[in-house]
Amino acid sequence: MAIEKKSLEKIFDVNVSRWKTSISWIEEDFIVTRGYFQEDLIGNVSFADVVFLLLRGNLPSKDESKMLDAILVSFCDHGVTPPSTQIARLAASTGSPLHASAAAGLLAFGKEHAGAIQECMKLLQETLKNDGKVSQLAKELVYDYLEKDEKIPGFGHRYHRRDPRAARILELAKDYKCIGRHAQLALEIEKVLNRLKNISMNIDGANAAILSDLGFHWEIGTGMFMIGRLPGLIAHINEEKAEEKPFRKTLNLGDIEYHGRKPDRIMRG
Amino acid sequence: MAIEKKSLEKIFDVNVSRWKTSISWIEEDFIVTRGYFQEDLIGNVSFADVVFLLLRGNLPSKDESKMLDAILVSFCDHGVTPPSTQIARLAASTGSPLHASAAAGLLAFGKEHAGAIQECMKLLQETLKNDGKVSQLAKELVYDYLEKDEKIPGFGHRYHRRDPRAARILELAKDYKCIGRHAQLALEIEKVLNRLKNISMNIDGANAAILSDLGFHWEIGTGMFMIGRLPGLIAHINEEKAEEKPFRKTLNLGDIEYHGRKPDRIMRG
Amino acid sequence: MAIEKKSLEKIFDVNVSRWKTSISWIEEDFIVTRGYFQEDLIGNVSFADVVFLLLRGNLPSKDESKMLDAILVSFCDHGVTPPSTQIARLAASTGSPLHASAAAGLLAFGKEHAGAIQECMKLLQETLKNDGKVSQLAKELVYDYLEKDEKIPGFGHRYHRRDPRAARILELAKDYKCIGRHAQLALEIEKVLNRLKNISMNIDGANAAILSDLGFHWEIGTGMFMIGRLPGLIAHINEEKAEEKPFRKTLNLGDIEYHGRKPDRIMRG
Amino acid sequence: MAIEKKSLEKIFDVNVSRWKTSISWIEEDFIVTRGYFQEDLIGNVSFADVVFLLLRGNLPSKDESKMLDAILVSFCDHGVTPPSTQIARLAASTGSPLHASAAAGLLAFGKEHAGAIQECMKLLQETLKNDGKVSQLAKELVYDYLEKDEKIPGFGHRYHRRDPRAARILELAKDYKCIGRHAQLALEIEKVLNRLKNISMNIDGANAAILSDLGFHWEIGTGMFMIGRLPGLIAHINEEKAEEKPFRKTLNLGDIEYHGRKPDRIMRG
Repeated sequence: MAIEKKSLEKIFDVNVSRWKTSISWIEEDFIVTRGYFQEDLIGNVSFADVVFLLLRGNLPSKDESKMLDAILVSFCDHGVTPPSTQIARLAASTGSPLHASAAAGLLAFGKEHAGAIQECMKLLQETLKNDGKVSQLAKELVYDYLEKDEKIPGFGHRYHRRDPRAARILELAKDYKCIGRHAQLALEIEKVLNRLKNISMNIDGANAAILSDLGFHWEIGTGMFMIGRLPGLIAHINEEKAEEKPFRKTLNLGDIEYHGRKPDRIMRG
Repeated sequence: MAIEKKSLEKIFDVNVSRWKTSISWIEEDFIVTRGYFQEDLIGNVSFADVVFLLLRGNLPSKDESKMLDAILVSFCDHGVTPPSTQIARLAASTGSPLHASAAAGLLAFGKEHAGAIQECMKLLQETLKNDGKVSQLAKELVYDYLEKDEKIPGFGHRYHRRDPRAARILELAKDYKCIGRHAQLALEIEKVLNRLKNISMNIDGANAAILSDLGFHWEIGTGMFMIGRLPGLIAHINEEKAEEKPFRKTLNLGDIEYHGRKPDRIMRG
Repeated sequence: MAIEKKSLEKIFDVNVSRWKTSISWIEEDFIVTRGYFQEDLIGNVSFADVVFLLLRGNLPSKDESKMLDAILVSFCDHGVTPPSTQIARLAASTGSPLHASAAAGLLAFGKEHAGAIQECMKLLQETLKNDGKVSQLAKELVYDYLEKDEKIPGFGHRYHRRDPRAARILELAKDYKCIGRHAQLALEIEKVLNRLKNISMNIDGANAAILSDLGFHWEIGTGMFMIGRLPGLIAHINEEKAEEKPFRKTLNLGDIEYHGRKPDRIMRG
Repeated sequence: MAIEKKSLEKIFDVNVSRWKTSISWIEEDFIVTRGYFQEDLIGNVSFADVVFLLLRGNLPSKDESKMLDAILVSFCDHGVTPPSTQIARLAASTGSPLHASAAAGLLAFGKEHAGAIQECMKLLQETLKNDGKVSQLAKELVYDYLEKDEKIPGFGHRYHRRDPRAARILELAKDYKCIGRHAQLALEIEKVLNRLKNISMNIDGANAAILSDLGFHWEIGTGMFMIGRLPGLIAHINEEKAEEKPFRKTLNLGDIEYHGRKPDRIMRG
């Protein structure tokens, strides 16, 4: 006795969105990711390859693989200076578990923090949609930002005059033949900025350029930073839990300036 | 005129906890992590090496490096089946940004999810503090759990009878000479469990054993899982944002059973 | 001997941003919030008053106080249907602690979920910057959205044809004399939408209108929703932990459709 | 033709856990929470009543309602001193959206922060399971903690010698007839601690005692704190976004002490 699909649906009321995915195919004793059995990936490709595979859909070439590995390494840690690291340690100091403290740290990857790499990728990718010589596009872009009195994302650094990681990434990009038009544009921007304001490319700028030349869409920028930085956050959380007293006190009452309304009476009663 | 440190401290009231760290040393144009200049790490060591360096304090041997890389790859994705992935996609479907959706996913790495690897590491490490032959310790452990009617963390799987990733990790551990007493204990446990209940080691069990033999303390388990899984979460978030309609509807009203108090009147008025 | 501030700063290198706030003034045994001693607020004003005080800067009138209290109550819970509630319960089911599970739930308050109230507030507030009669502005707005084939935030509901909470909030707004131009605009929009498409105002629309008439800037919308909904999320987390088995399984392998690349070989070996 | 449920289940493979709840019952145009139509709750009960209803299952008496309202108010804000507030502001300063910044703040409600209230509730509730006079139980408890050289949760405060909020809550508890054995025990503990160490009850201790006397299980402690504090966190996030420059810099390189491994060479070359 044939049961019509429609009547069955009525019984179970199942017009909810099914789960569809092109990332992994799971059956009993069967785990395939982007077309590869996971037991074939394990031991045959590097973690950087898997990041490429998951986010781009295919495995990288040898040079691309080494390049992405270098980029992931370059994100690893910047001590206790970034808000994300301070947040992860503050959360850990309250006794929050590791996974919650790490999540708190990642919540600081807003537009102004890890976001720089994404914004720089967007800037490079959208600028190159315009006609014109790369050197000309760079000049126009810099003058435009100077006129708006805005910082160009990926250039200049809170703590470094010449970010040693940026130079290294660009050097490797040459070795691995990963320099394309995005890196050329970033280098031209740096040339102009250097001359006018003595400002250099930082690691976000270098990584933004090379990731763009590797074919990554700018929307992947923050995600890449998070993957590269998570081990550092976890190391800091472990250190906080092992070495510091609970409930880290980062300031004294004297460090706070209150500028709100004064109460009507000084003592209650 | 010398100013005594003490009186200065009074002025600034600075007896708050200073930030101390042994992870990275940051000065202008100078970034050192665990004793290495980051520009020397970039391009010379793999991301798996940096994970080892950050969480253990020193660089791994060649075999250890390949082993950890394989373990990180093995965590990469399990489709939409785990709560962490469903959460990341549900959050993304509400228009929450990528970093917030990924953080939401990581918040599902509680004791019962990614926690299994950590609990299995703890079990193996603490069991081996006891005297006795490994096979004997394994037998006692299994009987103890059967008597308590509890699942042994790291053995059995919701979806797989023979987890193909576990076998592969153990095979590589032999190749890379990373089999030690923890892996032996895990294999003995599997032998007994297999005979009695037809249950096998899963990927958490295999990784827990090998990470323990690599010298990692059990407290690092969840952190390692998070590092390995984050790229998969990001891939799913991207897929949700690109392919699905906003505000994913996973259930119909008919899928919910209400068993609370009934209201006094059926219609208001 | 006067010490110049500048030289002291050099010694301590303190040109970091000081913490400034106009919200609370804390000294020893002294806690003042928005100009009131907290021991005077406690027992003398309601929680809704404190929400108003914190977010607007001053205490509300009696009618405003009752109105905001009603609005906060109206956010309280919508069963297990919203992504935020499903996420909080999924996270709790993995053994994640309550505070982490609740945070995960709040991470689902993106543009498409709790965001509707904020977008509706923005729409009403910006529309009223234009000249013209409210009924005319409403008509233009509806036709504009119909032409773009977009949903107007705050109108229509996934599960309800006539949202009973919306009618009640509007009724109370009349009693408490909180109906202003924003509510008039919302009611005019509803009139047109109702006639053309049989679509009514939902609770987000009603709350957006009244919060706007209470003088709240649209940027406060999501925050207000979070305050009102958090108790519901916590109730669901407690229920999940008390009543359900760990690691909630919301789907079977058969519920997933894989449409990615097929692996080259079906069995490995 | 009757279709057997069992065969249908086979077709749809639905032995996943259904969503069950006793909190809210949602049907079209029908929203019932804990047995009350939401349109009846709105405007008739306060937000504090709804918190009680959601977390205890029934509406409070008039005195209980006022008591809980006072307790929720007492949590409202403690300026920028707590880690949770600093985290929320740091996250907001990176450009992370409000809901993500608030979630980050809540992730700091670990055992050592908001956790004190929960631990104090547990301590009071478990101590009272023992036989003996309350004054005797208090004495034993204090001596036990002094011997272990541990802080009793809910007593003593980082910034206050006499927490003005605690005295106020206890005063109101007398007015509202909410003083029971838990409050008596807390007051006896304070008496002993005051005599021996000049330490007083803080707001967490007072709230823990009264919430216990109101019949709340200790597991609800952190949740109650979160509900009461969320508006304060949101006020701080708004202030940070409105008043401060992005990417708040809380420390200078000189504020950090590096005590890890020194690199082998000072300059790379």
